[in-house]
Amino acid sequence: MLPTFSDIETAARRLEGHAVRTPVIEAPRLNEIAGGRVLVKAECLQRTGSFKFRGAWNRISQLDASSAPGGVVAYSSGNHAQGVAAAAQIRGLPALIVMPADTPQIKQDNTRAYGAEVVTYDRATESREEIAGRFVTERGAVLVPPFDHEDIIAGQGTAGLELAEEAAARGVALDDVLVCCSGGGLTAGVALAMEAKSPGTKVHTVEPAGFDDYARSLRSGRIERNPRASGSICDALMSVAPGEMTFAVNRRLLGEGLAVTDAEAAEAVRFAFEVLKLVLEPGGAVALAAVLSGRLETRGRAIGVIASGGNCDAETFARILKREI
Amino acid sequence: MLPTFSDIETAARRLEGHAVRTPVIEAPRLNEIAGGRVLVKAECLQRTGSFKFRGAWNRISQLDASSAPGGVVAYSSGNHAQGVAAAAQIRGLPALIVMPADTPQIKQDNTRAYGAEVVTYDRATESREEIAGRFVTERGAVLVPPFDHEDIIAGQGTAGLELAEEAAARGVALDDVLVCCSGGGLTAGVALAMEAKSPGTKVHTVEPAGFDDYARSLRSGRIERNPRASGSICDALMSVAPGEMTFAVNRRLLGEGLAVTDAEAAEAVRFAFEVLKLVLEPGGAVALAAVLSGRLETRGRAIGVIASGGNCDAETFARILKREI
Repeated sequence: MLPTFSDIETAARRLEGHAVRTPVIEAPRLNEIAGGRVLVKAECLQRTGSFKFRGAWNRISQLDASSAPGGVVAYSSGNHAQGVAAAAQIRGLPALIVMPADTPQIKQDNTRAYGAEVVTYDRATESREEIAGRFVTERGAVLVPPFDHEDIIAGQGTAGLELAEEAAARGVALDDVLVCCSGGGLTAGVALAMEAKSPGTKVHTVEPAGFDDYARSLRSGRIERNPRASGSICDALMSVAPGEMTFAVNRRLLGEGLAVTDAEAAEAVRFAFEVLKLVLEPGGAVALAAVLSGRLETRGRAIGVIASGGNCDAETFARILKREI
Repeated sequence: MLPTFSDIETAARRLEGHAVRTPVIEAPRLNEIAGGRVLVKAECLQRTGSFKFRGAWNRISQLDASSAPGGVVAYSSGNHAQGVAAAAQIRGLPALIVMPADTPQIKQDNTRAYGAEVVTYDRATESREEIAGRFVTERGAVLVPPFDHEDIIAGQGTAGLELAEEAAARGVALDDVLVCCSGGGLTAGVALAMEAKSPGTKVHTVEPAGFDDYARSLRSGRIERNPRASGSICDALMSVAPGEMTFAVNRRLLGEGLAVTDAEAAEAVRFAFEVLKLVLEPGGAVALAAVLSGRLETRGRAIGVIASGGNCDAETFARILKREI
């Protein structure tokens, strides 16, 4: 069953007091560059450093020791892992996270810091779904999927709901909202929120160039896959294909999908550092990168940008600042 | 004439629509470390990257081409410079800024980017007051002092007013508020705001160790000077002595002054990067550093922290992340 706006409203009530109502930041210099208004929803300031806590908490807050005797299991390149681990910790449930062995160290460390058990696997030769499925069966645990679930989509949608409310409070009618996109859960939630609260707003996916499965799927009308599962600095956006549920929502609601290069993503990370004073990871900066590199018309328009995460290794961040990336 | 809380309320009205109402950020991990609640007022997200825009706009918005035919002049190690330059640009007045030659490049560049003329001087051999005074006379310009002026103190105080309002909205009674302190303008404004809106709250200065003129002055009851005007990574906090006006306000209102080492400030910059996802400059991180290094009792208490600025050179920031500083 596809999620609806009412599910997002329910999720918003569940998240109250647990998730951060992240600020919407408007920087005069960014507005000047865009020649319009750019409202940045700073999800890097969310609990666990990305929007992922929203969906995880919306799902996990409904579980307890009797419905999930073995706790929760998730597979994730990192941000969903931290969101699930933190939500499970609050709920008092054990969490096991299946992570690619090449996940940035900060994301593995933080996941463990939230009390989760981490099992790594080789992206090239092993299936994370299979490994996770085995633990679910063995332990009597509940799987918390990264995007293709109505509770996850509804939870992520609360970010869109908050952006719509904040834009309205400032008297801004958003023309477009740009969302950093991997499996499409955040995008679908934001699109549902905008449909209900700001129907004149067009929502767009932004992906790393060469990993634009969502943009291609939207064009062809069916689920297209990426040829590779790694090879961009945007490690958070490496899902190989749209989710079936997210695509069912998104194909009805989205505008054209956009893509930016790794160099443009890195430039956006530097811009966020220098001008916005926000720490973004490359994958959390692609929506901002689309504005900065002129991927859509911004002159005289109002654009919402979801800055979706900030979990960047210190070493990688330092290299980006020094323009080595 | 000393500023009062009513001046802060007037300043708040002037700042509306021009300054950012910066978010107050509460991070579960920081609360855990403190064993209490820590509310971080993220002034790094203020226009120009520090709180300084508040005071500058409060002063400069009252000037025009007839009262300041030669525009405005300021001397500053960097953040006040950017605040004044941006405020003058909005007001359509020329700005000339006298800056130490060793000011971080990003602060000089940003000051020029706001349309100001920059004149550099040697901290060791020249007097910035003298140079600025000469331009004021020659050009018929108005001096905008960095801290010792009622409009500046009242403008900075709006940050304290917003923090008090936000704490009240969250049902938090702040026990202490820590303020990164140089000449004491921000501290005085925050202390006046707390006296009016949160009288049970004690306000403390936090300074770099070895440059704790304010802490020593509060102890001795008279203005004490630092032996040096440079030599800390906290370049924003290098005023050699409390202002006369700020001290007159602060000696009546403040609790004990605190100090942290450069290493502790750098650790706080890394913490802000890793956990808060905020870009802080070392001088803007000393209040946070005081919490992280246990400089005051935080267990079971509610602490406000003013994270006062984020204008850090990319190269310096990269070195801090790599623990070379």
